[in-house]
Amino acid sequence: MATAQKLANLVNGVNVDDLYATVDAIKAAPAVAKFRFRIQNEWRGASRNCSRVDSYYGAGLERFRQCPFILSADEPSILLGTDAAASPVEYLLHALAACLTTSMVYHAAARGIHIEEVESAFEGDIDLHGFLGLDKNVRKGYQAIHVNFKIKADVPDEQLQEIAQLGTEHSAIFDSLTNGVPVSVSTERL
Amino acid sequence: MATAQKLANLVNGVNVDDLYATVDAIKAAPAVAKFRFRIQNEWRGASRNCSRVDSYYGAGLERFRQCPFILSADEPSILLGTDAAASPVEYLLHALAACLTTSMVYHAAARGIHIEEVESAFEGDIDLHGFLGLDKNVRKGYQAIHVNFKIKADVPDEQLQEIAQLGTEHSAIFDSLTNGVPVSVSTERL
Repeated sequence: MATAQKLANLVNGVNVDDLYATVDAIKAAPAVAKFRFRIQNEWRGASRNCSRVDSYYGAGLERFRQCPFILSADEPSILLGTDAAASPVEYLLHALAACLTTSMVYHAAARGIHIEEVESAFEGDIDLHGFLGLDKNVRKGYQAIHVNFKIKADVPDEQLQEIAQLGTEHSAIFDSLTNGVPVSVSTERL
Repeated sequence: MATAQKLANLVNGVNVDDLYATVDAIKAAPAVAKFRFRIQNEWRGASRNCSRVDSYYGAGLERFRQCPFILSADEPSILLGTDAAASPVEYLLHALAACLTTSMVYHAAARGIHIEEVESAFEGDIDLHGFLGLDKNVRKGYQAIHVNFKIKADVPDEQLQEIAQLGTEHSAIFDSLTNGVPVSVSTERL
C-alpha cells in the first residue's frame, strides 16, 4: 500500500512551510503576532541572583515550559563576586549574539539561502567610572559593542554581506539595543 | 596566643572595604576602570546556538575563567524552535534583572543600607509584525519593558524607593537598554 508522506521543507534546519504558515496566520488574525515574554529574578546575596524563565504569552494563549529554565548570574572576583556564573553584561552579549544568529538563519531560510556554519565574536567596552559614579561624563553601560560574523555558505562575497544584514535588519535584540527601549520600574515592600 | 584577625566588613554580602579599595585604586590609576567583556557564539542549526563566556580584560590584565560558562539559546516550538533553552529575548530580561539587582545591592552596601531580600518580575512586549517584516511601522524589538521590584529591608517607605533607584541609576544594562548602544558588525567568510 503506497503512502503519500510529505517531506518537511527544511532550510538551515528551519521548517520553511511552518514559517510561511505563521506569516499567513498573522495576516489572517494580526493579534496572533502579540507576544509577552517574562522572567522572575531572586537575589541570593551579594553578586548572586537567579532568573526563572517559564511562562510567556503568544499567539493568543498563556504558554508554559515543560520545565522552567534557571539562569544564574554572578560577577568575577575582581568585581567582588564569586565567579560562579556569567555576569549580566556577558548575558547581554549572549542575547545579542543568539538573536542576530537566529534572525539571520530564519530570514535566510525564508529566502531559500542555505547557510552551512556561523561563528561570531562579540566585544563590549565598559569604564567603571560610570558604574561607580566617579565621573558623570562616563556612561554606566557599554560604550560600544563590536561584532564579527564568520559565515560559511556557497554564495558570492556580496551575498555573504547580505546574509549578515538579514540578522541586523530583523533582530529584536539588535533593535532594542541600538534604538533603546522604554523601561518602567515600580517598587513595593516584600 | 592572641591573634588579631580583622573581620570582613560585609553589607548585603558585599565586602565594603574591597569596594572602597577598588574606588581608591581607580582614583589612583584611572585605566584600572577599563573593562572589555567578550563572548564567542556558534550556530548549532535552526534556532539553536551556544555562547562561550571565558576571557575578559579588566584592571589592566587579560583574565580567564577557571572553566568557561556555556550559554545555550533556542526558541519555543511556536516560534519554530525546539524549546531546549531560554530564548534570546528572555536572556535580555535576565541580563537586565541581574544587573539592576547587583547594582542596587552594591550601591546600598556602599551606603551601609542593609537589604534582606529582593525579588523582581520583568515583562516585555514584542509584536512579530516587526521581526517578520510584515509592517515597517512596528519595531522588531521590545516595545516596552515593565519591571516590578519587591524589597525587604528595615527602612521607611521613601527609602525603599531610593534603594530601587540605586539600581536604575547605576546599572550598565539599564543604561545600555534605555539609552542605546552603538553596535558595529563586520562579516567575513568562514
